[in-house]
Amino acid sequence: MKLKKQARRDAIKEQLQQNPFMTDNELSDLFSVSIQTIRLDRTYLKIPELRKRIKSVAEHNYKHIRAIEGNEIIGDLIRVEPNVTAESLIYITEDSVFTRNDIARGHILFAQANSLCVALIQKNMVLTRDSQVSFLRQVKLHDTVHAFAQVTDFGKKYITVAVSSYVKDKCVFKGTFKMYYYSEEES
Amino acid sequence: MKLKKQARRDAIKEQLQQNPFMTDNELSDLFSVSIQTIRLDRTYLKIPELRKRIKSVAEHNYKHIRAIEGNEIIGDLIRVEPNVTAESLIYITEDSVFTRNDIARGHILFAQANSLCVALIQKNMVLTRDSQVSFLRQVKLHDTVHAFAQVTDFGKKYITVAVSSYVKDKCVFKGTFKMYYYSEEES
Repeated sequence: MKLKKQARRDAIKEQLQQNPFMTDNELSDLFSVSIQTIRLDRTYLKIPELRKRIKSVAEHNYKHIRAIEGNEIIGDLIRVEPNVTAESLIYITEDSVFTRNDIARGHILFAQANSLCVALIQKNMVLTRDSQVSFLRQVKLHDTVHAFAQVTDFGKKYITVAVSSYVKDKCVFKGTFKMYYYSEEES
Repeated sequence: MKLKKQARRDAIKEQLQQNPFMTDNELSDLFSVSIQTIRLDRTYLKIPELRKRIKSVAEHNYKHIRAIEGNEIIGDLIRVEPNVTAESLIYITEDSVFTRNDIARGHILFAQANSLCVALIQKNMVLTRDSQVSFLRQVKLHDTVHAFAQVTDFGKKYITVAVSSYVKDKCVFKGTFKMYYYSEEES
């Protein structure tokens, strides 16, 4: 679908309003232009690169979290409905992989999921009690892991959260986290 | 037990040969002298401080590990009997705690245990398949966590490892790790 420049730029602006996390690569495929053209379009539209857009959304979400500092979340918090659901993205860098094979370390995926559970629960103090996790597929250097957390049980003392993490459309990690919580106003 | 200086120094040397991980605090209690005196004794004996002794033992143990680089182990590998058992120590620093309450992040204990499992298994490729963990007591800034890993099942494709971690004599963490392994010479 090859549009004229102004029409394409309007369409890109609308596309990113609906889905702020599209990559330049995906946009270039969608509009059948080069990645360089997409970058020029974004510059014209004053739309920053993907990483900055993610950070901006994450910072906006920090006002919803109570149990943890925003910068303590492993990954970027792209969506949160307190005590219900949350999502984060993490980009796998050299620090996060085994040097010999570029496979992501298990504890990175665990950390992303675990800190997402802490961020999700809008209480003053949240600590992990138990967890069961499975590593389903290898995650590689430069992958982006999208974690989805959902509260499945909200008890008087513990909250259970189910997390599933994906690279593109493949599920790479699943986990259940039983979180202890405490909130002063309820004591 | 107040010994004369040379007798005390001989006794310290022997004590540290048997238990290289005693702290200066423990030595000062044992010999009823100040910590400064212990430090002077160690300087005379050319025995480095605890952190250096731990690092030295860990580096010595790196020759037994195959699946991971020594510096990729979270914590210091103080003992390893390949495919049977291993131990590591981790000192909890500011990077590893929640800023608001100085409690250690769960993923740090998970990372220590998980990387100990990878180090323990003397195969070319070792990856975590599943894990079940429990966080039993809070771990705080400046604690030292001592993790013990033991192989409980050695299968053709998976090895199961049980890990228990302690701060002093209190168990703070328990976990079971099912590890997938692959070794070229067995293919």
